[in-house]
Amino acid sequence: MSATVDVAVIGATGAVGEALVQVLEERDFPLKTLHLLGVDEAVGHSVTFRGKNLRVRAADEFDFANVQVAFFVDEADVTRECLEAVRRGGCAVIDLSAGLPAGQAPIVVADVNPQVMASLKAPYWVSSPAAVSVALSCVLAAIAGQVEVTRASVTACLAVSSRDRQGVTELARQTAELLNARAMEPRLFDRQIAFNLLAQVEEPDNSGHGALERRIGNELKTLLTRPQLKVAVTCIQAPVFFGDSLNVSLQTEAAVDIPAVCAALDASPAIEYVEPGDYPTAVGDAVGQDVIYVGRVRGGIEDEREVNLWITSDNVRKGTAVNAVQLAELLIKDHLSKILT
Amino acid sequence: MSATVDVAVIGATGAVGEALVQVLEERDFPLKTLHLLGVDEAVGHSVTFRGKNLRVRAADEFDFANVQVAFFVDEADVTRECLEAVRRGGCAVIDLSAGLPAGQAPIVVADVNPQVMASLKAPYWVSSPAAVSVALSCVLAAIAGQVEVTRASVTACLAVSSRDRQGVTELARQTAELLNARAMEPRLFDRQIAFNLLAQVEEPDNSGHGALERRIGNELKTLLTRPQLKVAVTCIQAPVFFGDSLNVSLQTEAAVDIPAVCAALDASPAIEYVEPGDYPTAVGDAVGQDVIYVGRVRGGIEDEREVNLWITSDNVRKGTAVNAVQLAELLIKDHLSKILT
Repeated sequence: MSATVDVAVIGATGAVGEALVQVLEERDFPLKTLHLLGVDEAVGHSVTFRGKNLRVRAADEFDFANVQVAFFVDEADVTRECLEAVRRGGCAVIDLSAGLPAGQAPIVVADVNPQVMASLKAPYWVSSPAAVSVALSCVLAAIAGQVEVTRASVTACLAVSSRDRQGVTELARQTAELLNARAMEPRLFDRQIAFNLLAQVEEPDNSGHGALERRIGNELKTLLTRPQLKVAVTCIQAPVFFGDSLNVSLQTEAAVDIPAVCAALDASPAIEYVEPGDYPTAVGDAVGQDVIYVGRVRGGIEDEREVNLWITSDNVRKGTAVNAVQLAELLIKDHLSKILT
Repeated sequence: MSATVDVAVIGATGAVGEALVQVLEERDFPLKTLHLLGVDEAVGHSVTFRGKNLRVRAADEFDFANVQVAFFVDEADVTRECLEAVRRGGCAVIDLSAGLPAGQAPIVVADVNPQVMASLKAPYWVSSPAAVSVALSCVLAAIAGQVEVTRASVTACLAVSSRDRQGVTELARQTAELLNARAMEPRLFDRQIAFNLLAQVEEPDNSGHGALERRIGNELKTLLTRPQLKVAVTCIQAPVFFGDSLNVSLQTEAAVDIPAVCAALDASPAIEYVEPGDYPTAVGDAVGQDVIYVGRVRGGIEDEREVNLWITSDNVRKGTAVNAVQLAELLIKDHLSKILT
């Protein structure tokens, strides 16, 4: 890629924003100028990139005509407030905030449905799905040649970093208070999260489902182009700083050839397959890595049309920042390089 | 109950043993003499009962003819070593150690299949199942009139107290070391358990399943007399001191009437039903309680033959000690009272 692009990151001071800037640097992304943007108290802070401190400027004063690609990693509201300026500027958008109007930007995981990028039309708006959807879709896509999955039951144990830095700070604070036998009033989370598991990560709707739980189900079906797939997802808040852990039970159309499933996982470049006996954990394996770890692959005890597995993934990096940068790389290859060179 | 019985507790110094002694006291169990037994370094320790310190004596020197009921809560090996003496003594056995020969003692949960106790023959041997099986079977039995469950997918997040006091001590030690930024070598668990989730609680067999996972599936089918029920269980080690948390997705023969399921749970004396919006946690609700908490009851997003729910239960008390004492109470009512009075 000889073309270089000007890039804006909106929400650069959050955990995902910082990871995104770090991934841009690590992957040697063909970048001309990097504009870091934010709102409210984020403005004026600085973030290190290629050895220099870049100051965060106000998103609402930015001219999006100055960049070819904008990453939105702040709250959905912030994305919505910038949309008019983005339309005027005409830049491509990679949205991680779920802030684009429905139907205006296909969701893409670089390791799952990259072909969608090639058929994208200007101004090239694309969405990166929830971190859990990235991990799950990579695993299901890797084994799609071996099994036709009809139902996925997923228990997604989310790290507190899914609530950005405040989540990390709060778990540390609660833990320290409890270890020192001091009275502890929960903040940020509605209960004690230290040494506990919370059964939901957000207020459920009238049917009892959380928005993220619904989103993961919908994203999985779209990413795998399997509208008939049945998905039951429960998102749990775990007292883990970084890295999501997913326990998954799959039901399949036909009897599962477990060794073939393991071989397919092992062959996927997006996946680090862990042999039975051993198993991956969020802290020990996934954190800081750009691959998804899969272990405990096993059939059903009394059902040959069942496969169970365990997934750990870095929710901030692989699940979010890495996919976003991979999407930008595809965008350059498929579209922008023609304009820029 | 006017009859009083002499009781032995084998394994009285462990977390479950102490909880059992406490429950005997709290429930005002009709007890004449309590003999606390143990092996190795447990011998000579003492445990408080009704305001007095009772010394733990050597199990291998005990004459089981001195008691009418023996609770086995130590390792399975210890139970096996005592079996010959138990047979000679002729006492009833309530086994929590999974140490009795297969088929020699039916598994019973007082809130699920108490009728089994009535048909028990002398010398009255009975097994209390794994803590997870107690919680799951109570919930499934409570809704059995509303739904015919065909499959249960269970993610069982176990507290470290499932590894007795050593588990509790190790989680506290690891957490303190990490918070103080000191080097930390895991002991007892094979990985870092603090701020992490472990995908298995024991070495799996050649098919990838753990013995406890198989046991829970088998116990559920037996307790519910549903041999055709399909069960997928994954036991995860969570960084929680006390209280198991279970995420459960059930598939059913027919469309589920969710309000009827909620009403049935609410009506069960063994269950504390928590309304949607709110939810129970191990630390905040279940610990120290003799009921099982159920929340997040909801249907499937796209499947009307599905119901999802979240269970928290005190693994040491309700899942283990309370059921054992309830079994002893049934034993007295159904059988021993005739002998003793």
